[in-house]
Parts: sequence; C-alpha cells; structure tokens
Amino acid sequence: MQPLALILVSLAGAVSQTNLFGHVLIFPKASPTAYIPLGTKNKQSLQSFTVCLRYFSDLTRDYSLFSYASRTSDNEILLFRSFPDVYKIYIGGTAVTFRVPEKEKKWPEWVHICTSWESATGIVQLWVDGKPLPRKGLQKGYSVKAEAVILLGQDQDSYGAGFDENQSFVGEITDVHMWDHVLTPAEIRLIKNNEVLPLHPMDWRNMSYEIKGYVLLKPSLCPVYRAPQATQEEEL
Amino acid sequence: MQPLALILVSLAGAVSQTNLFGHVLIFPKASPTAYIPLGTKNKQSLQSFTVCLRYFSDLTRDYSLFSYASRTSDNEILLFRSFPDVYKIYIGGTAVTFRVPEKEKKWPEWVHICTSWESATGIVQLWVDGKPLPRKGLQKGYSVKAEAVILLGQDQDSYGAGFDENQSFVGEITDVHMWDHVLTPAEIRLIKNNEVLPLHPMDWRNMSYEIKGYVLLKPSLCPVYRAPQATQEEEL
Amino acid sequence: MQPLALILVSLAGAVSQTNLFGHVLIFPKASPTAYIPLGTKNKQSLQSFTVCLRYFSDLTRDYSLFSYASRTSDNEILLFRSFPDVYKIYIGGTAVTFRVPEKEKKWPEWVHICTSWESATGIVQLWVDGKPLPRKGLQKGYSVKAEAVILLGQDQDSYGAGFDENQSFVGEITDVHMWDHVLTPAEIRLIKNNEVLPLHPMDWRNMSYEIKGYVLLKPSLCPVYRAPQATQEEEL
Amino acid sequence: MQPLALILVSLAGAVSQTNLFGHVLIFPKASPTAYIPLGTKNKQSLQSFTVCLRYFSDLTRDYSLFSYASRTSDNEILLFRSFPDVYKIYIGGTAVTFRVPEKEKKWPEWVHICTSWESATGIVQLWVDGKPLPRKGLQKGYSVKAEAVILLGQDQDSYGAGFDENQSFVGEITDVHMWDHVLTPAEIRLIKNNEVLPLHPMDWRNMSYEIKGYVLLKPSLCPVYRAPQATQEEEL
Amino acid sequence: MQPLALILVSLAGAVSQTNLFGHVLIFPKASPTAYIPLGTKNKQSLQSFTVCLRYFSDLTRDYSLFSYASRTSDNEILLFRSFPDVYKIYIGGTAVTFRVPEKEKKWPEWVHICTSWESATGIVQLWVDGKPLPRKGLQKGYSVKAEAVILLGQDQDSYGAGFDENQSFVGEITDVHMWDHVLTPAEIRLIKNNEVLPLHPMDWRNMSYEIKGYVLLKPSLCPVYRAPQATQEEEL
Repeated sequence: MQPLALILVSLAGAVSQTNLFGHVLIFPKASPTAYIPLGTKNKQSLQSFTVCLRYFSDLTRDYSLFSYASRTSDNEILLFRSFPDVYKIYIGGTAVTFRVPEKEKKWPEWVHICTSWESATGIVQLWVDGKPLPRKGLQKGYSVKAEAVILLGQDQDSYGAGFDENQSFVGEITDVHMWDHVLTPAEIRLIKNNEVLPLHPMDWRNMSYEIKGYVLLKPSLCPVYRAPQATQEEEL
Repeated sequence: MQPLALILVSLAGAVSQTNLFGHVLIFPKASPTAYIPLGTKNKQSLQSFTVCLRYFSDLTRDYSLFSYASRTSDNEILLFRSFPDVYKIYIGGTAVTFRVPEKEKKWPEWVHICTSWESATGIVQLWVDGKPLPRKGLQKGYSVKAEAVILLGQDQDSYGAGFDENQSFVGEITDVHMWDHVLTPAEIRLIKNNEVLPLHPMDWRNMSYEIKGYVLLKPSLCPVYRAPQATQEEEL
Repeated sequence: MQPLALILVSLAGAVSQTNLFGHVLIFPKASPTAYIPLGTKNKQSLQSFTVCLRYFSDLTRDYSLFSYASRTSDNEILLFRSFPDVYKIYIGGTAVTFRVPEKEKKWPEWVHICTSWESATGIVQLWVDGKPLPRKGLQKGYSVKAEAVILLGQDQDSYGAGFDENQSFVGEITDVHMWDHVLTPAEIRLIKNNEVLPLHPMDWRNMSYEIKGYVLLKPSLCPVYRAPQATQEEEL
Repeated sequence: MQPLALILVSLAGAVSQTNLFGHVLIFPKASPTAYIPLGTKNKQSLQSFTVCLRYFSDLTRDYSLFSYASRTSDNEILLFRSFPDVYKIYIGGTAVTFRVPEKEKKWPEWVHICTSWESATGIVQLWVDGKPLPRKGLQKGYSVKAEAVILLGQDQDSYGAGFDENQSFVGEITDVHMWDHVLTPAEIRLIKNNEVLPLHPMDWRNMSYEIKGYVLLKPSLCPVYRAPQATQEEEL
Repeated sequence: MQPLALILVSLAGAVSQTNLFGHVLIFPKASPTAYIPLGTKNKQSLQSFTVCLRYFSDLTRDYSLFSYASRTSDNEILLFRSFPDVYKIYIGGTAVTFRVPEKEKKWPEWVHICTSWESATGIVQLWVDGKPLPRKGLQKGYSVKAEAVILLGQDQDSYGAGFDENQSFVGEITDVHMWDHVLTPAEIRLIKNNEVLPLHPMDWRNMSYEIKGYVLLKPSLCPVYRAPQATQEEEL
C-alpha cells in the first residue's frame, strides 16, 4: 500500500477545502449544467484504480454516477446506472455490464458502490453495499489516460462538456474516493463503513471540489456512522 | 428556533377551538364540496416552511393532501399524491416529484408525511414515515405569497375554489402542523412520534378549523401514542 | 350499553337452538338455493348497527357475506366481497367501497370482519382481522328499515328471494353477531378474539338459525380460541 | 375407530412387501406406462374415506396424484393437481375445486396432502401441509364403488387403462395411506408428522405394491422425521 | 467408497498443479474462445458419476456449466442453465429438466450445484445449495463414453470444439469435483460446506487445469469457509 493516492494528491490542489464529513452534495433537479468537477491535474496514466461513492436517488432512468474523460475518450472511466437493473462500467470507451435486482420496487435508500479495474488482467470489480458481483473484464493491458476531466453529476460526451440532461444525476452523493490501485476486500469493507483507511491521507473529507450550477452542499439527513478510530486501527 | 409559528398564530383566530388530541378528520366520500379551511390571515410572505400531517386512505387515484393557494398561484404550496407511486410538491406553481414504492399492494395504513422548502437554496425535503427521500429543489429565491387560502380535502384550481371531485381526498387526516421554517431531522422525528416540540406553543391540538361540507371530527380508531412529557424534554 | 340486542332478541324466537361454540356453517358448493335465514322479527328500524362474522373461502369471484333486505330495498344492509380487492357495504341501497390487498395471492385463511354504520354521521366502519380501514360515509340521517329478511350465503335481489348462484357464498362462516349500536374499538377487539362482551346476553353461540338447502353445521377444523372468562371481565 | 382399514387389509394380499419407511417411489419421467397399482380386492363399497400422501414434483402442468377407478366411473376417486393453482377432487365422476397459492414461484418442496369424503354430508376436506382449506361438498348419499383399480402415477380414463402421458406424475411420492373413514384433525396432524396412528395396523410401511414401467423405489434424500413411539401414544 | 476417483486420477497427470483452495476461475466476458480443459485421459467408460461445482454469475441467458464430450456425443455429459428457471442435465445426448425459481429476481450470489447419474436406474439427481430437487431419470443401462474432452466455460457442439459465444459462461467458478460414483446425501452436504471427503485424495484444490483464452485464476472475494478437519472426520 505504498504508492497510493496519485489522483487524490493532485486533486488536493484544487478549489474549496473543508471538512466534508457528514455532508452530502445535492443535485436537486435534472439539468445539463449542474456538476462537480473533481480536479484535473493528474499527469500520469493509470494502470489500475478504485472509485467508491455513496448515492441516494429515486430516478427511474439512466444516469451517470462518476465521469472521467480524457482527450481521447469521453468515457475513459464511467460509472453509469442504467434503467432498470444494470450498472455499466466503461474503461477507455468500452463497457462491461453488471446486473442487479431492480431497486425501483424498494424504498429509495443510500447505496454504497465501489468499482475497480487493473490493466494487468483487465478485471473489473463492482461492489454494491459491500457485496461483490461476479467480476467482469475488459481493456487488458490498457492505460487510463491522464489529464482527465473528472466530475460528478453529468455524463461527458466530449472532454469536459457534452452534458445530456436525460443522463444527469438527481439526488444526493457523498463519500467519494479514488485510488490508483485496487483495494482489497477488507479495505472495501472499511470504506463502506466510513472508516479511514490507514496510510490514506487524502480522502473525501478534505477533498477539493468546485460547484458548477445548481448543486448544494448540505449536512446529511441521516445519522452518519463514524468508526471508533482506535479499534479500527487495531483490527488492521 | 425563535421566529416561529407565523402561520399557526394567524390560524389561531379562526373558528372552532377544541383539544383535538387523539381525534381525526374524516372525509367520508369523494365530493367537490367537502374541505377544511385552515385560516387565511397570514400577512407575511414565507421564505421557508415545513408542513407535516398524518393520513389514512385506500384511494388508488390522485388526490390533494394540503392545498395553499395565493391570489397569484392556486398551487402556491401543494402536497399531492399521484397514482401509483409518486408524491408531488408544488411551490409557486411548479412541482418536484418524489417516487415511493406503490403502497397499493400493502394493507392500508396511516402514513406520516413532512415536507419543507427554503427559498435560500430551493431545497425541498420529503419525509415519509420518518424516512427522508432524496432532496429535490425548485424556486430558489422565491417568496411564498401571503393571504393564502389553506385547506385540506380539495385541490384548489383557483383561489379558494375550483375543486375537482376526482382529486378530492377520501380517508382520515390528523396531526396537521405548519411552521415558517425548516425543521431539523430531530424535530421531524419528534413530530412523527406525536411529541410536542419545545417552544412551539401552537399546534394541531388547539388549532382552529372550520368544517365545510361532509367532513367529520371523530376519535381515532387506533390507540394514539403520547410521549411522556418529562422524558422528551430531557432528551432535547 | 343499555339498549342493546334489539335484533338478536327478536332472532331468539326462531328455529333451532344449540350451543354453536366451536361450530361453523359450511356452504359446500355454489347454488341459488343454499342459505341460512337469521330470523325476521325486528319491528323497529335501526339508527345504527354493527355486524361481525368470521369466514373462510377460496372463492375468486364476487360473493355476499351478509344480506339484510327490507320491503323497500333488497340491499338495505349488504356486506359484499368483490373480486379481486374490494369490500362493498350497502346501506339502504347505496354502497361504499373499501380496498384491501388481494387475498388471492395468499394461502386461504379465516378472516374476521366487522362493519358498522350510524345514521347521525353516516359513517361506515370496516374492520378486517382487527385492523380498521379508512372510514367512509353514506346515508346520513337514514333509518334502516325493520321487518327484514336477514340471511347468510346468498345475495337477495328481492325481498327474501332473487338469489344469484354467481354471488352465492362458498366456504365456511361462524361467529355471526349483530348489534343495534356501534361497537367501540375495544369491543371489536374482544369480539375478534372470540371473547364474550359483557351485558351482551345473546350471541351466536345460542343464536337461532334455520338451514335452507345444502348447508351443513360442523365442528371447526381449527382449534378455537376461548378467552378465560375471569381475566377478560377484569380487563374491562 | 373400530371398523377401519377395509381397503388396506385387502391391499395386503398383493405383491411385494417390504418395510418402506424412509423410502419413496420415484417417477423419473413423463410416460403413459409407468404406474404403481395399489391392490384391487376391496369387495365393499365405501361410505367415506381418507387418502393421504406426500409428494415432491417440479411439474408445471396438470397431473394425477391418486386415481381410483371403478367399472362405472374412471374418476370414482381422483386427486388431481391442476396448473397453476388448483387441486381437484373427484367422487363418482364429479369434482370439487380447491384453490391454493401458486407453488410454481417457490422452491420445489415436499407437500403433504390429505383428502377425505363422507357420504352422509358429501363434505370433502383437503389438508395441505397440515392446513385445512375451506370444505366443499358433492355426491351426498353416494357410495364409492368397490372392486376398484387404485394406482399412483397415472390418471385412468378407463378402468385400469387409458393413461395420458400429459397427466402422468413426474417426481417422488411416499407415505401413501387410505382409510375407510374420515380422520379427525388430530389424526391428520399425526399422519403429517409421520407418526403411527393407534389401532391402525396396516399402513404404507408394510403396504403391498407393484411396479409397472419406469418407477423406482429408493431411499428418501431428506432425513425422515420419526416420532418417538412412546410419547406419541401417551399424547393420544 | 473404495473404487473412486477414476477421472480425477487421470486428470492429475495434466498441466498446472497448485493449491487452489480459496481461488476461483473468472470468465470475464462472453467469447467462443475462453475455457478450462479439465484433462482427457480417462480410458474407462462410466456407469455412474457425480459432478459438483460452485458458480457465481449474473447472466440472464442460457449457458454451459460443465461440458463432457465424447467422440460419439458432444453432450455425453452436460450441465446446462437455461433461462429463466431451468437446469438441464444431458447424458449421452438426451436431457432431463429441473425447474427452479427464477434467480434473476434476487441479488446474484454463489450457487452450489451437484448432479449425479447412475446407469443401473438411470436416476439423475440435482442438488442446488444443498437442497435436492425431485429426481428424474434417463439413459438407464447406458455407459458414459471414455476419452472425453471435459471443460468449463463453453458448450461443445463437437468433440472439443464448436463453441457458441451465446452459451459461454461469464462469471466465476470454483470447487469443481467429479467422482465415478453417486455421492450420498451426507457426502453432498460435506462437499457443499467445502469439507474434504475422507478417502477422496484428489480434488479441486490440487486438480490439474489449463487456461485457454481470457480466463483468470484469482483469490475469491468472499471469505471461504474451511471446515475444522478433526471434527469433520469424527462426524463421519
């Protein structure tokens, strides 16, 4: 776990910087203009990565959850929810599909999601609420391009632009993390429970972000679980 | 929590005045004539508000739950249940939509509902049985107009009139509250459990109301939970 | 609770008279000829009433559960189950409708049902397995006519006749009670649990009945809950 | 309970005779040739009877569970499962229908079934997994003819013949019992739990049977519940 | 349990040989080229066999789970999942069908599956997650041909070839076992719980395998249950 946090370190130079623990980003309505850019300074391409976030939405149409566009591919990395029962993960412009039960029949609730990819095997993992789905694979040997535009709330159809209101996110997002390696199952579990990973100095709680358009930063309406710091480090 | 109860104070000058604790309003049949006006004396516009109520209905069509019309908009505030799986909240004539699971497949039961809006952000909250739905937003910067006609049981299609039998409420309603600010999650929880908010002198239990048409005030058929007064204040 | 049991007293003069506790009436097949008349001697009209019974059926079509016809209206009182998810209560020829979840998807089981009406408000209550549904209302100010033909198993389309095989009851019925007033929620609960109401000397267990056509009186196949007499009176 | 076991005694003279406790009959595939004849020597007609058996099938079409044909009616007694949600019981060529929830949506599992009929009332009982369904009635006053061909696995469309592959049973059957009287609810419960009825010397465990076509006798794959002999007799 | 492991012994001569405990084979995408050959050296035909494996897939189309082709039949043994609710087992080119509830409505999860066949009776067993389905039968008296091509991931439409991408497996597979006899219910239970059978020296954990095309060997993402060795042997 030595060479970590490539991206998050680069993000740290960006705009606003507050302790976001217990806060969420609200995307209050569908639009082609509301989004959260997450820094664009990574100079190195990626051989692997993990992205985790928590979201809360009652949408019943397709929407983007995390969009990372490079100059050569607007879907360099894309985490996409497709109606009614599918998640799609794009790497370098091609996608794998994960099927889940239709959440539309249940009461809307917060969903925790982690996805990872590694170039050496092409394997893509998707964890939903801490449960792994059958692994898929694509883009073995590929490098995820650097100098990306990373953002929440919109699907980029071109580099940093090309937003489609019909794929915009409406709802709440929090606890967004990105790493330049594949997390272990034990680390996924820690992240899901909102515990701090050891040796992971930069995370959502002091991450940089900018607000574009109608997006709001607000306290969560649900009590946030905070892991006891000591116990957690002992467990590891 | 100082400047509260703008509306409820103005309501207090209205007609009948009994202790309504443990009582409900019954709207026994569909009609364009039965409704409960809730006072019309507020002289000040609203920058934010919260409305809570409890209702019990086996309707499987659209209906109005709370209608607040101004001279400029008949849907100045409107809490509307839309068949089969949607709540709509109107502010100043425009609406946001919240999706919930279809209740039609379950045994009819009492539902507790709270909605709030604030002008500063436009954020609309909807709580159903104490659970928050993903927040939406609209009418940022707007002021809800004063001198309203507020009523239960009908949807106003014009100021104090224009009732449509096909959108009339049929069922039982109780525990109606309105505040001129956004309640905290802790306050929502208290209200849901029928506990008295501190510093909230005016509520449904001694609220004014008038009966128009075929509406009845009757004891609830369910045992009413009454919070122990002391314990509750200590908790706060 | 003084002036009670108008109807049941008049019923007491009728035909057979055995202790029916733990017994049920079986309507073994659809027919236009099988029914149980329940006495016809009430000379006074009714300003209110409650009817309770327990039934067990796997029918998936409409059927009558309790039919009370006067010379002026064959649906003077009618408790009617309508496929797939509705109960209809008729008073003086007009009806209210109560929606319930479709029981057809569950294993057939005994259902306890109580309905009441009062002239002063027109309010109709329906309790299914001890749970109240949203109250409806009709025939405010009406008097239910006397000299009725009351029967189980058929829907009367004229006074004491006009039976329709397609609305005949098939299944088992027991614990039939009628009162000339509206029971309290506490009394409904007692009746549901097969406990004897205090001051209610006449009930199903020594009620009169006649058998017309293919109907059978048999012990219940389920163990019958019998409330301990002492405890129950102390509770009241 | 004196004059019992008319049929089972006559069956006892038939072919093979082993202790079948914990064994099942497997009907491995649909065919018009595989069946189990259960003796044909009863010389007396029946005024009442009970048949119980346990079966395990994933069929989603109609099939026969127990077929008893006389020279005058091939459906003298027939226990028939009809897709998707019905059991039919035939007596002397006419049928009653019992509706149950569709089992097709659940994991296939063993079902215990008992049906009885008595001539005096015509009442037919059906118990599924120990739960009674609403009783039906037919053939009041009828006598079930003697000198029957009784068999498992096929539906007879003529006396001992006329098999239809599309109604053949596929799956496993065990614990087949027949009595010349109606069992009490307490006895049904004992039989369901695989306990021996007192005064019932002849049962499936030493019953005679013959194998015709592709049917196999094999140990059950599920552990069989065996009631402790002493306790059970004391309970009665 | 003496003459066991005919096939697994012959497999042992094959290619790679590592301790695979806690590892899985990932088939990351649909293709006609990815598969795992499992040795081809068995010189003796089979009078009976058992195959067990564990798999994890979110496919909603047909796919092959285990394909054993001989020179005379490409479906000499085939374990096939058919959309939406059927498993098919082929022996010598003919099939039996087992119906299960549609798993598509549930969250994808690991499924443990065992199937067996014996020539003497033709009986086919299928166990899913340790629960037996009603037994079926086919190919009584048949011998499963030797010199087979056994493989995971593809359905063979000719000897060692004829792969169809639309029937390829996508997902994860582990704990693959094959025996030349029918396991007892107790042994099935042990295998399901990942316990080592006594006298079964060769199993998946040191089984040979080859990787063809895009298949990966990776640690399982779920904690693997490892039975305490001592206790388990004592139980047997």
